[in-house]
Amino acid sequence: MPKVTVNGLKLYYEIEGDGAPVVLIPGFAAGRWIWFKQTAELSRNFRVIIFDPRGVSASDKPEGPHGPEQHATDMLALMDALGLKQAGIVGHDVGGGLMQPLARNAPDRITGLFFFDFLYPGIGPRMAEPDRLNNIWYQSFNQLEIAPAVIGATRESCRAYIGYFLKHWSHRKDAFDGAIEAFTDNFLKPGNLAGGFAYYRGAHAGRIRMLKGGAPELSPIAVPTCVRWAEHDPLFPYAWTDRLAESFANLDLAMFPDVGHFAHREDPDRAASEIAAFFERIGWR
Amino acid sequence: MPKVTVNGLKLYYEIEGDGAPVVLIPGFAAGRWIWFKQTAELSRNFRVIIFDPRGVSASDKPEGPHGPEQHATDMLALMDALGLKQAGIVGHDVGGGLMQPLARNAPDRITGLFFFDFLYPGIGPRMAEPDRLNNIWYQSFNQLEIAPAVIGATRESCRAYIGYFLKHWSHRKDAFDGAIEAFTDNFLKPGNLAGGFAYYRGAHAGRIRMLKGGAPELSPIAVPTCVRWAEHDPLFPYAWTDRLAESFANLDLAMFPDVGHFAHREDPDRAASEIAAFFERIGWR
Repeated sequence: MPKVTVNGLKLYYEIEGDGAPVVLIPGFAAGRWIWFKQTAELSRNFRVIIFDPRGVSASDKPEGPHGPEQHATDMLALMDALGLKQAGIVGHDVGGGLMQPLARNAPDRITGLFFFDFLYPGIGPRMAEPDRLNNIWYQSFNQLEIAPAVIGATRESCRAYIGYFLKHWSHRKDAFDGAIEAFTDNFLKPGNLAGGFAYYRGAHAGRIRMLKGGAPELSPIAVPTCVRWAEHDPLFPYAWTDRLAESFANLDLAMFPDVGHFAHREDPDRAASEIAAFFERIGWR
Repeated sequence: MPKVTVNGLKLYYEIEGDGAPVVLIPGFAAGRWIWFKQTAELSRNFRVIIFDPRGVSASDKPEGPHGPEQHATDMLALMDALGLKQAGIVGHDVGGGLMQPLARNAPDRITGLFFFDFLYPGIGPRMAEPDRLNNIWYQSFNQLEIAPAVIGATRESCRAYIGYFLKHWSHRKDAFDGAIEAFTDNFLKPGNLAGGFAYYRGAHAGRIRMLKGGAPELSPIAVPTCVRWAEHDPLFPYAWTDRLAESFANLDLAMFPDVGHFAHREDPDRAASEIAAFFERIGWR
C-alpha cells in the first residue's frame, strides 16, 4: 500500500504513467477509485496521481472536522512529499472546493485547474433558495454526531443512504449499477462514514458565509482554468456557472452534455478526453 | 381500544373527564401520549380528548402523504363522529399547523385555539435563512423514500434519530430522560416511521410557499386564540411571534419561560394551567 505521511497523517495514493503530473481529487461519497477509468486513459500521456484525502477510504481518519483549507494544506504537503514541483489539478464536488485555496496559496505550483461541478463563491444564496432545500439537507445532516452510527447501522441502511446520492445526483441513472456494493463496502470500514461526514463540519462556516452572500472578496485566480459543468446536475444547475469568471480570470467554460453530477462516471471517456485536451492546450504535457 | 372511523380510516382516541370538550393535538415525534400529564390535570374540569392523527402511533397509516389540510378534514370528521358540536383545540408543532385550516373551515365549531410553538405564514422566509439550515434539514430528509428504512434499520439507529430531536429541541435537556425507549418502541412498530414522515411530503408545497414569502393572503382567524411560545425553542425562536396578529385577530400572546420546543413536556404543570386558564377566560367550561 503506497502511503505517504503529510501533516502527521498517512495518505494513500497511487501513481500511474509518465509525463507531466496531473492529480485527480475525488468528491463526496467517493475515493481515488472514482477516477480509475480516467487514470487508465490519461496515464498514456500523463503521470496520474490519485489519492484518498484525509477522512476518506484508505487514508487516515483523524478526529475533528476538516474543510477545504485543511485539504489544500494536505494537498500541498502531498505534492512536496511526492516531489511534484508543479502539477495539473483535477477535481469534482468537494475536491473542487479545496482547489481554490490551493491555487491562491501556491499558484506557482499549479499549472492548470480542471473542474467538474463544484462549489465556488459566486453560487451564493442560490444554493439555499426554498426550491433547493430538498437538495442540500445532507450538508446539515452529515454534520450530526449521530450521523455515522445511524447511517452505518446496517449494510442495508448504509447502501440505501449512499446509493440515494449516487442515483439522485446522476442523470444517467445506471451510472453506478454494479458499483453500489463497493461503495457500501468502503463506507462500512471503521471510520469511513465519520471521516467523510467530518468534511461537512469543517466546511460549514464557509458555506454559510457563501449562502449569506458574504463570501470574502477574493482576487480572481489567474491559473489557467477549465470548467466542464454538467448539463443536468440536480445539485449544481448549469445556470450557476454565470459568475465563474469573477473567481477565475483565465477561464475556459463549457457545458458537459447529457450527464448529471458525476460526469467522470456517467461519461468517463469524454471526461478523460476533456481533461487531456485542456492540459495539452495549455502546454502541460 | 377506542377507535372511530373517519374518512375511511380508524383513528385511536381516548376521552377523560367531563365538561366542555377540549381536544389536544400532538406534534412531530409524538402521539396522544405526549399530553398524558395535561390530560390528568385538565380532565378535572374539562372533557379531554386525545388522539393519534393519521399516520401516527395506534391510528391507521394509509399510503401517501398527508398535510395540514388532510389533518384538518380528519379532525372535523373526528369531532362529528364523537358528537362534539364545539370544542376547544390545543396543538403544538405540526398539530398547530392543522388548526389553522380547521379554524378557517369551521370557525363555528371551534370555541378557542391554544397553541404552543408552531408554523404559521408570518414566519415566512426566516425559517430557511442560512443560519437556520442546520435546524430544518429533517423537513427534507423525512420526505425521502429511503428515510423510514434507514432510520428504522435497528433499534439503536431509531433511538438515536428520534432521541436527537427530543434532546436538541428541548431547553430542559432532561425532559425526555426515561421516555426515549417508549418513543423508540412506538416508531419501531410497522408503519410508524413512514406514517410520521409522510406528513413532511404532504406539508412540503405549503412550506415552500411560506419560505418564498408567498403564503396565500388569508383573512385573520377570528376565533379566540392563545399562544404560549417558548423562550428557548431552537426550532422556533420567540422573535418569530412578531407577525402572529396578522393571522389571529383575537390573540393572547405571551412567552412561556424557561422551556424549549416541548413546553408540555418540559414544564407540564404550567402547560396545563395555561391551557385551563385560557379556556376559563373565554368562558369555555
